[in-house]
Amino acid sequence: MNTLGTLLRFTCFGESHGAGVGGVLDSFPAGIAIDESYVQSRLDRRRPGQSTLTTARNETDRVEILSGVFEGRSTGTPIAFLIRNKDQHSNDYAALRQCFRPSHADYTYQAKYGVRDHRGGGRSSARATAAHVCAGALAQLALREVGIDVLAWTSQIGDISLPPHFAPGSEAEVERSLVRCPDPATAKQMEELVEAVKREGDTIGGVVSGRISGSTLLGLGEPLFGKLQARLAAAMLSINAAKGFEYGDGFAMAARRGSEVADVFYTDASGHVRTHTNHSGGLQGGIANGEDITFRVAFKPVATLLREQATIDVSGQPVTLNPRGRHDPCVLPRAVPIVEAMAALTILDSYLVSRADRL
Amino acid sequence: MNTLGTLLRFTCFGESHGAGVGGVLDSFPAGIAIDESYVQSRLDRRRPGQSTLTTARNETDRVEILSGVFEGRSTGTPIAFLIRNKDQHSNDYAALRQCFRPSHADYTYQAKYGVRDHRGGGRSSARATAAHVCAGALAQLALREVGIDVLAWTSQIGDISLPPHFAPGSEAEVERSLVRCPDPATAKQMEELVEAVKREGDTIGGVVSGRISGSTLLGLGEPLFGKLQARLAAAMLSINAAKGFEYGDGFAMAARRGSEVADVFYTDASGHVRTHTNHSGGLQGGIANGEDITFRVAFKPVATLLREQATIDVSGQPVTLNPRGRHDPCVLPRAVPIVEAMAALTILDSYLVSRADRL
Amino acid sequence: MNTLGTLLRFTCFGESHGAGVGGVLDSFPAGIAIDESYVQSRLDRRRPGQSTLTTARNETDRVEILSGVFEGRSTGTPIAFLIRNKDQHSNDYAALRQCFRPSHADYTYQAKYGVRDHRGGGRSSARATAAHVCAGALAQLALREVGIDVLAWTSQIGDISLPPHFAPGSEAEVERSLVRCPDPATAKQMEELVEAVKREGDTIGGVVSGRISGSTLLGLGEPLFGKLQARLAAAMLSINAAKGFEYGDGFAMAARRGSEVADVFYTDASGHVRTHTNHSGGLQGGIANGEDITFRVAFKPVATLLREQATIDVSGQPVTLNPRGRHDPCVLPRAVPIVEAMAALTILDSYLVSRADRL
Amino acid sequence: MNTLGTLLRFTCFGESHGAGVGGVLDSFPAGIAIDESYVQSRLDRRRPGQSTLTTARNETDRVEILSGVFEGRSTGTPIAFLIRNKDQHSNDYAALRQCFRPSHADYTYQAKYGVRDHRGGGRSSARATAAHVCAGALAQLALREVGIDVLAWTSQIGDISLPPHFAPGSEAEVERSLVRCPDPATAKQMEELVEAVKREGDTIGGVVSGRISGSTLLGLGEPLFGKLQARLAAAMLSINAAKGFEYGDGFAMAARRGSEVADVFYTDASGHVRTHTNHSGGLQGGIANGEDITFRVAFKPVATLLREQATIDVSGQPVTLNPRGRHDPCVLPRAVPIVEAMAALTILDSYLVSRADRL
Repeated sequence: MNTLGTLLRFTCFGESHGAGVGGVLDSFPAGIAIDESYVQSRLDRRRPGQSTLTTARNETDRVEILSGVFEGRSTGTPIAFLIRNKDQHSNDYAALRQCFRPSHADYTYQAKYGVRDHRGGGRSSARATAAHVCAGALAQLALREVGIDVLAWTSQIGDISLPPHFAPGSEAEVERSLVRCPDPATAKQMEELVEAVKREGDTIGGVVSGRISGSTLLGLGEPLFGKLQARLAAAMLSINAAKGFEYGDGFAMAARRGSEVADVFYTDASGHVRTHTNHSGGLQGGIANGEDITFRVAFKPVATLLREQATIDVSGQPVTLNPRGRHDPCVLPRAVPIVEAMAALTILDSYLVSRADRL
Repeated sequence: MNTLGTLLRFTCFGESHGAGVGGVLDSFPAGIAIDESYVQSRLDRRRPGQSTLTTARNETDRVEILSGVFEGRSTGTPIAFLIRNKDQHSNDYAALRQCFRPSHADYTYQAKYGVRDHRGGGRSSARATAAHVCAGALAQLALREVGIDVLAWTSQIGDISLPPHFAPGSEAEVERSLVRCPDPATAKQMEELVEAVKREGDTIGGVVSGRISGSTLLGLGEPLFGKLQARLAAAMLSINAAKGFEYGDGFAMAARRGSEVADVFYTDASGHVRTHTNHSGGLQGGIANGEDITFRVAFKPVATLLREQATIDVSGQPVTLNPRGRHDPCVLPRAVPIVEAMAALTILDSYLVSRADRL
Repeated sequence: MNTLGTLLRFTCFGESHGAGVGGVLDSFPAGIAIDESYVQSRLDRRRPGQSTLTTARNETDRVEILSGVFEGRSTGTPIAFLIRNKDQHSNDYAALRQCFRPSHADYTYQAKYGVRDHRGGGRSSARATAAHVCAGALAQLALREVGIDVLAWTSQIGDISLPPHFAPGSEAEVERSLVRCPDPATAKQMEELVEAVKREGDTIGGVVSGRISGSTLLGLGEPLFGKLQARLAAAMLSINAAKGFEYGDGFAMAARRGSEVADVFYTDASGHVRTHTNHSGGLQGGIANGEDITFRVAFKPVATLLREQATIDVSGQPVTLNPRGRHDPCVLPRAVPIVEAMAALTILDSYLVSRADRL
Repeated sequence: MNTLGTLLRFTCFGESHGAGVGGVLDSFPAGIAIDESYVQSRLDRRRPGQSTLTTARNETDRVEILSGVFEGRSTGTPIAFLIRNKDQHSNDYAALRQCFRPSHADYTYQAKYGVRDHRGGGRSSARATAAHVCAGALAQLALREVGIDVLAWTSQIGDISLPPHFAPGSEAEVERSLVRCPDPATAKQMEELVEAVKREGDTIGGVVSGRISGSTLLGLGEPLFGKLQARLAAAMLSINAAKGFEYGDGFAMAARRGSEVADVFYTDASGHVRTHTNHSGGLQGGIANGEDITFRVAFKPVATLLREQATIDVSGQPVTLNPRGRHDPCVLPRAVPIVEAMAALTILDSYLVSRADRL
């Protein structure tokens, strides 16, 4: 089940400390200009070691496109790509062969398969999402051509949050802080919190907000089991450490009255149907109404602490886990490009599928 | 995209005011005793008109199983079933032909398909979920045989909530209140709130909590794009009015530190690996660790109000929508069996898929 | 696995002697005029009892469309339909409960599932294909709108064959003989052969030829595992009694030289790329080149004889099977509309999928 | 659509003259010993340049496994592999940029996608099947553990054929001739024919026969659209140059009577249900009955001739194609391992799916 999508299908592979990670993006439309440096730049954005806030691993990841692109354009055939693992330090993980880390997937992989690559979490490592980012970058190149824009940003770390409907104007605003929070004052508080948490050998959770815009969104999404919110949720909850997904006003709507959250329609000056408010988050009945699609993804704190932790070994005996490896105190900054990638893949697939709505 | 699942595939059909709604459940395991009265009883539980809190429509729904069951047992072939529509009152909806109701799917269906069955929302009506409940009941009959239990309950309506980790002991506790909240005192407050909202012609949102239990859960879920939380989220967010999904501690984890939410392993008296806490909600790396799978689904308030509402007609002109039809002031009580059904379908599919993990 | 297709998905259900057979056709394009009498007429064409050459069962099948059609047009939502079983004579099949008929699926269903509906073969009965014909008729209504035509005919029964490249001009030519062979002289010989075989209580096999035409075929088919010949072969070999599939010159090409079967390109008067010959059967590299797609499907003789047959019972003991029920001496005439239906479903799906080839 | 399979999913990629070809095999069961030298040996068997009968391209293909294998065992995670292209001679193909070769896929890819990698046929090259062979080899490693054996051989080249029911005892018998025909006398005739055809700059077609055996086959195959013959046909007809598929007595059954081809059941000494004959080719109602599954695949002669050929260029003007590149006069010997690979992938997928038949 390492394939996502109906028409545009992204299949990924790879372990944290194997030969590499990569993917195959199938049924990508032909004729799209493929700017490999753009793909690499998206990958660089996910890279650890960008600041003191993220892990010191210096993954100088290089993506190699293996197929599906000819003379700078997509050919309609599968685009495969490979990112070789380099900075592996497998020995750092030798102790993990014999134990199950708390709130990690060591135990569940072992229970499910009877075998696991323990090095750095193997397949369950967030390292796998490097492939997602590359595939998402390709999807973004296609979405640009139909005027659809995807943007994500950090809206909460710990107890520090942006106001509910804060929305950045551009990626540049997001990129100007290390935590990828577009409000400078909030970003500064977040950075201080992450530094404090890091000093304690601890980690902290947060929320990434996302927005998908473009008038060509109108009509995307398939009833009943291809509702766009269901596809987005599945895509987001396949990201490591994601714990929740909401769209529009989300969980806050549970406490609201119908009269408060009705998105009243009107016709704008150019004759388009619009809504005065967007509590719906751009989706009604699972189908995009043309307003911005807005959503939020909750991330738990990283499970690996730079502290001693009690756990059990593979024979079930209690052991003490000593801090090892290099880990982020907070995944949020690096989660931002991954959320964007998953959104782009989901929307492009939906865009292609919706072409069959009518003859 | 009206099919859900990988091996166990549920395909549904039907409009609110057409001939009926129904479904086909394919690759259901052979040899399961099919108690049709159980399926009917689950359907009855979703039925409107059960109390003054829910709509007065008296849908005396009867499910007819059309195939796949022989002499009381499943045969491994598709189980099709049909629930004919009876109490249709299509004329109630004549006004809807010409207008788009706010926060409904009238406009998006029209924009997507260029045609729509306007009567009662057509395919976008919550009526469609009657089929989900029947399919889910069949799935529950199979899950029982492998010791997996699914339970859902109302944990929030408006600003009235159960405490965070409140969990009922049994379905009987859930069923003893009209709102399906297992704590009698909280249930009473919720009922009063719903009555008050109804008197105002308004509606109110809420949250359904769910729990899946059973030691055979261990190992279910498929990396990376078949993570059990991703499948559950997609299933839940395909329910009408659902706005968010979280599992384990969910969005609350965004504000927590890693040291606070680590689920520390231990070996229990019978030698099983367990965790002292369950912030993870039973899922680690997308795979069940054998603890209860816990999740929550947010529902928005019903969009149809018993008040006048401003909107536009199909030509884009402003019109006033007069209250018509019979609608719930709060979907929560009826959402409970739907959430259970979607959980059961997801888990049984995952159970069947996971059999291929090893030869 | 009772679903066929990638975007246009046909899910079918039903047993020979249960409540009925039917299907759900999902992602059918919206806005297509649905002539229900056309669907019924296609179903009538598959009906047994049309002549002395086919079984005397008088299945007065009526198809009821349950959803997805509103005021005569498809709405883009699933089109479900049901054909209730009427002329069941289940008692005719009582003896089959205890035995496995030779070259039937009684034994394999029992071995696979541990349970089976023995009446008339249950799910394995050709009765199931009534649903295929209805779904195919719907597909043909859509294909007409894009100028694609599907035609099938009987080209061989026993040792009587049409010449290799014989092709009828119209369905009317096919329909004028009981065996659906478009050449009157050959048809007469075939009818005599079937009558003779029937008198002996025996059955006989044959071949159905098919042709799909239309300039909009150009570009349909998906490399590498969605090659159009692979999709057509899978669709055809899911028909009861089908034993082989070939396209273009098929098996005859095994004996030919490359220089004999090269389809040389030229540009026609209107500037279209054409081929002088069509050994390729309209498909090159799995993709339609715009020439007619031609194929042939081999059918074995019906396994049920009107003679005593030796077999075993469910406990493995030898028994003699007495002739029972009413069966065709030759499936070919009734296979023709089924082949057309499967072709139409396959091509419409491919047509919809191919819209995503380019942005 | 470069993914094959329901649970075991093989996704492939790559062009003839790009960076390489490869694939991802997902949901491969965990814990299988992966002998990489076996995979390489299967790949070597498909390699061109093995004899004067096949092309002189010296593809010293090396397969690199990139993921999913840890310490010699499969881990249940995707097994990705890459075969880099080496001996590319892209310049040989410069002329092809401007023309469409007869009976090749140059024109259809151009028409479909508006762009193509012309070098050596790009994605449509038989080179892509190197990936199939590797994936098939992995599948064979798993099938061995459940006692299922797959064998294919050349049964016809041009007008020289093995007798209808000739079946080799072992792979060694197949391998002892260059044409992979297990009967030495027939093989010699075939070799002489291929040499003669080659001298004339021509090519020749043929048939590969296949056999799948093992008592654990009983019950594999899914009604109605997952019938094993449908899956096998689709797999085989996705191989380059394949023109037809038949199983059991196949097309020959069209000329037979039911009384001649009934496979009469009996109970063997060990109490197993068997059939005296196997006209059914091991499949009844789409499900394996435990007898050998037998099938045949027709291959057309290679389209590239070492002669001048008339065709058109990309602007539609007539041109003469001069012989270029290095091509097989007959694909049959190299098709044998590809047929085996496709059979192994299909059967292992079916084996895994069938585990869900009963709880």
